[in-house]
Parts: sequence; structure tokens; C-alpha cells
Amino acid sequence: MALLDFFRQNKKSNSAAVARERLQILVAHDRGRNGPSYLPQLQRELLKVIRKYVEVDEDAVNVHLENEGNQEILELNIVLPER
Amino acid sequence: MALLDFFRQNKKSNSAAVARERLQILVAHDRGRNGPSYLPQLQRELLKVIRKYVEVDEDAVNVHLENEGNQEILELNIVLPER
Repeated sequence: MALLDFFRQNKKSNSAAVARERLQILVAHDRGRNGPSYLPQLQRELLKVIRKYVEVDEDAVNVHLENEGNQEILELNIVLPER
Repeated sequence: MALLDFFRQNKKSNSAAVARERLQILVAHDRGRNGPSYLPQLQRELLKVIRKYVEVDEDAVNVHLENEGNQEILELNIVLPER
């Protein structure tokens, strides 16, 4: 549950920010041995799935993909439009 | 980049564990105002997308969904089969 604790902390530190609707997605891939990376393709598909549920503007998505050794992390930060 | 730092820390603490291939997905939804929750449905669709890229056994998926105030967090931990 350490990850949940992290999100809780993160939430507290943002409490002064404007209460916009947000969606944050993190994908961490620990590759036991080096295989091909599918996170860039996965990212596009994840966005496609999310768009079934919420409207997502092209410029409301912030993407960060990082490689470090055998770990790859994909981070998507999405600010949802006001309804 | 605080989230990435968190993952890095997490990785270090697991360095003694067996180097199995893993995929961890976190979805945090900060709802500006209360709307319907779509994370349970989203979870099923995310798994469907991931199965296009990797084989995922039914019992290799650990799901945790949590609600706290206006924040919902979905956590998926997947141990991938050895190739």
C-alpha cells in the first residue's frame, strides 16, 4: 500500500491548487530481461480507451516516458475539461 | 517528476526480489466534483489492451481500487509469465 500512501501525500500537497478534474496514469514496466518496449504503443491505446469515458483535449495530455536500466516508466497526466 | 522519484525508490527497495517481469499500472482520478466512477470499467479495458502486448494470466493480476473523498485510485499489479 506504499503507492497509495504516496498518492495521498501528493494529494495533500496539491490541496491549494484549483480543483480541476484530473486523471493521472502511471505504467511501470520492470523487464526481467531486455525485451522490446511496447509502452509508446500502449500509451496511444490507453488514451484511446480513456477517450471512451471522458473527453480529452489533445493539448491536455502531458506524456513522459523514461528508461532506467531494466525499468521503463510511462506517465500520463491529463487535465479533464470542465463539464 | 516526484512520481518518477517514487518509482525509483520503490525499485531500489525491491532489488533483492527475484527479477520477474512486472507491470504496474496506477490510475488516479481527482474528481473536481462528484461524477460517476468509470474506473472499474476502465480497469477491464486496460487489461484488454495490455493483453494485446503481453500474456497475462488471470491469477497474475492484483487489483486494488480505493476511494477517498474526491480521489479514486486504481492499482493494477501484474506479474508477467516467464518467456
